[in-house]
Amino acid sequence: MASKPFAIIAGVGPGTGASIARRFAKAYSVVVLARNPDNFQPVVDEINSAGGQATGISTDLSDSAGVKSAFEKIAQQYLGSALAAAVFNSGGGFVRKPFLELTEQEFSSGFESQGKGAFNFAQGVLPLLLQAKGLEHPPTLIFTGATASLKGSANFSSFASGKFALRALAQSLAREFGPKGVHVSHVIIDGVIDIPRTKQWQFEHEDAKLDPEAIAESYWHLHAQPRTTFGFELDLRPYVERW
Amino acid sequence: MASKPFAIIAGVGPGTGASIARRFAKAYSVVVLARNPDNFQPVVDEINSAGGQATGISTDLSDSAGVKSAFEKIAQQYLGSALAAAVFNSGGGFVRKPFLELTEQEFSSGFESQGKGAFNFAQGVLPLLLQAKGLEHPPTLIFTGATASLKGSANFSSFASGKFALRALAQSLAREFGPKGVHVSHVIIDGVIDIPRTKQWQFEHEDAKLDPEAIAESYWHLHAQPRTTFGFELDLRPYVERW
Amino acid sequence: MASKPFAIIAGVGPGTGASIARRFAKAYSVVVLARNPDNFQPVVDEINSAGGQATGISTDLSDSAGVKSAFEKIAQQYLGSALAAAVFNSGGGFVRKPFLELTEQEFSSGFESQGKGAFNFAQGVLPLLLQAKGLEHPPTLIFTGATASLKGSANFSSFASGKFALRALAQSLAREFGPKGVHVSHVIIDGVIDIPRTKQWQFEHEDAKLDPEAIAESYWHLHAQPRTTFGFELDLRPYVERW
Amino acid sequence: MASKPFAIIAGVGPGTGASIARRFAKAYSVVVLARNPDNFQPVVDEINSAGGQATGISTDLSDSAGVKSAFEKIAQQYLGSALAAAVFNSGGGFVRKPFLELTEQEFSSGFESQGKGAFNFAQGVLPLLLQAKGLEHPPTLIFTGATASLKGSANFSSFASGKFALRALAQSLAREFGPKGVHVSHVIIDGVIDIPRTKQWQFEHEDAKLDPEAIAESYWHLHAQPRTTFGFELDLRPYVERW
Repeated sequence: MASKPFAIIAGVGPGTGASIARRFAKAYSVVVLARNPDNFQPVVDEINSAGGQATGISTDLSDSAGVKSAFEKIAQQYLGSALAAAVFNSGGGFVRKPFLELTEQEFSSGFESQGKGAFNFAQGVLPLLLQAKGLEHPPTLIFTGATASLKGSANFSSFASGKFALRALAQSLAREFGPKGVHVSHVIIDGVIDIPRTKQWQFEHEDAKLDPEAIAESYWHLHAQPRTTFGFELDLRPYVERW
Repeated sequence: MASKPFAIIAGVGPGTGASIARRFAKAYSVVVLARNPDNFQPVVDEINSAGGQATGISTDLSDSAGVKSAFEKIAQQYLGSALAAAVFNSGGGFVRKPFLELTEQEFSSGFESQGKGAFNFAQGVLPLLLQAKGLEHPPTLIFTGATASLKGSANFSSFASGKFALRALAQSLAREFGPKGVHVSHVIIDGVIDIPRTKQWQFEHEDAKLDPEAIAESYWHLHAQPRTTFGFELDLRPYVERW
Repeated sequence: MASKPFAIIAGVGPGTGASIARRFAKAYSVVVLARNPDNFQPVVDEINSAGGQATGISTDLSDSAGVKSAFEKIAQQYLGSALAAAVFNSGGGFVRKPFLELTEQEFSSGFESQGKGAFNFAQGVLPLLLQAKGLEHPPTLIFTGATASLKGSANFSSFASGKFALRALAQSLAREFGPKGVHVSHVIIDGVIDIPRTKQWQFEHEDAKLDPEAIAESYWHLHAQPRTTFGFELDLRPYVERW
Repeated sequence: MASKPFAIIAGVGPGTGASIARRFAKAYSVVVLARNPDNFQPVVDEINSAGGQATGISTDLSDSAGVKSAFEKIAQQYLGSALAAAVFNSGGGFVRKPFLELTEQEFSSGFESQGKGAFNFAQGVLPLLLQAKGLEHPPTLIFTGATASLKGSANFSSFASGKFALRALAQSLAREFGPKGVHVSHVIIDGVIDIPRTKQWQFEHEDAKLDPEAIAESYWHLHAQPRTTFGFELDLRPYVERW
């Protein structure tokens, strides 16, 4: 395949992941990963129809064998291309329950999705990011955090432990791979995102939901930073959000 | 068995766990949990010889079935006694490796030990702590954190993600169970502890290692706080530690 | 004067400061500082009547000349005694106003009280703490923080900037003087304290206010830690506090 | 004067401030403030020569009367124009000394510059930002932080207390004025910036200093965010920086 650089976006449904894929598709060929092809197919089709290049691969990121096979497909398809950016945007593992009603599996689902999923993704993309050459911007790996990345709340022990683990991973990777030229970032999304699933949620104020296109623009900004000036963490919230 | 309140200490080897067990045994009957009986037997014997009451149970906290069976034994043995305090002090899950050399299992071992282990322990002790009556001090659940609870460093992604997850769990439980009268705390041990394993480690200054007896004294202090004045987080380090 | 060690408590009214003075007076002769003698006289009398030793000195800590003269008096009176502990507990500088209604002087009052006041106090006590000999516990300097030490909120810019500055000072001193054997701590009081001024404040739950005696007990605990195991920061709140 | 929106940049020397002024001058007329006109005149001339609009005003931000008079000049000159963005980038108040060698004035210089200076600046710009109409991007107020915004270190108590106070102010203003539509941000510059003063500083790795143009680009990015998606805090550092 051609030498156009590519980006991999994991966790692509009709929300933020799709917006990120669209934004990065302006510059790169994009590969989008999600468990369910129904989730990524619309944005793949949209990008390809608009003259961009997009491929979807169905993968469960918490399954290391599946991830390995997905990355073998990617390696084959993008042989000779440089991986410019990778975004881990998985929203899985969200369980909200009183602690004593949680099963071990429910509790662990936060880590399965946010910790192990991010691990498998990072294992797949980092070797490619490290060997990427000839890029306009430093190779970049961005993780999507949440309010629960900074605060464990009642009934949120599963999701918070997953998001805390993800932030630990992001910090560890930034400190290990930053000096090797890979830009690792962690973005904290603090609020409700304006996506199809939240369309009918009512708020007192207008514009009270995060715009996924604006989130994607911030991810691109982080990617476009030179290695002299890497941003690690950025928190995003609507102007009326209480925090 | 008699109505003397009891305490459960998980993660008891020849170091901090033993000191905590000894300290709480001054006031309570203690149950100590560890995977390997060789680790807890000396302190159990020591406490019993000195006129205290101690029992050891061999358990792998990351195995929910094993934990359940351990707590059944405890319920039987301490029928009619109130659980006054529970301490999660597991040191497992420490892997230090460059990220790309980690297997999925090695990465997950941090969470298995620190996240899932703490989950299983908390599931076992919280129902007992909630129903404890007639205690001098509020029922207490303390988790042991580390430098890696606050900072993910190069080569520490496994342990840091486990310790971050543990801190998320502790915060979540403090916010859920504090208002129900259970005191949940998280202690950050920032430095090398003076235990048999670190005896020969040399430092430039004297007294440069944390004293496990002093750590235990701080755990007891947290336990002895009234519900008007619960401490959540305390960081402990030697006077010469750089931080 | 005799060789009994002494403690200096700054910011002593009928609340936390008085409780801290009472607690430290069990072991030491105490000097209490406050702007208004009416604030410290009752606890001074109480301690002296109960067989302890207490002196009050009227000082405005944000006035460096006044502080200097107070410390000259102290040096004279406690010649030959070791300063065992010093507590900065000033509650001044609390202004709550919409930002655009603040005068420069109101905004600065947070720093005047919490920053400059703590600076002057630390300048006075640190030389004495550094030269203290023959103490049972390491010489200790404790600063009282608040919710506003960690979070700047709407209408709290004055107090929060003062309390943030105080925490910066405490961290800086801990890192500079810890290795010299002085234990520097910062305690975050997160909630309403049960003092005469808040007696009539109503809460939904009982025991919803911090107990100043329990706060004082935690300050003493920090003081009693050996240098192997210094606690830097502890956050205290009522069991029902939302955080 | 014309209706072109304008920006005010405080703390403009030959480094970051100049780069920020240049960047915002691409879209706006800019007013630059600094104590010494020698510091801002080169960038004012450069912007005007290049077809932009720039004015410099000599002001000491820690002097409220001087700031008032500066803002009267600005109000007159920009009558009818909307203030689109304001940046507080003052580098003053940096003192590095052992604590016991600090005078009260040296200690306070951190707050004078970073706290009181930012207060006076915010008092001047917020009324203009609140009434700004017809802008492409939400009116924005950005504060420049540093490593010392998050960590008080030995010998840094003056600067750290000033930078902590500034962060408290920024958080307070974000929470008060965000819901009123003003975007308040705080950027943490963690490392050495590549400016004339640091030109000869040697580092082991190339590109080890932050690029002021890249910093300015991040400030612009924050300014360009819609109110649905306000970033509050971003930390920037060179890829090889240890943190």
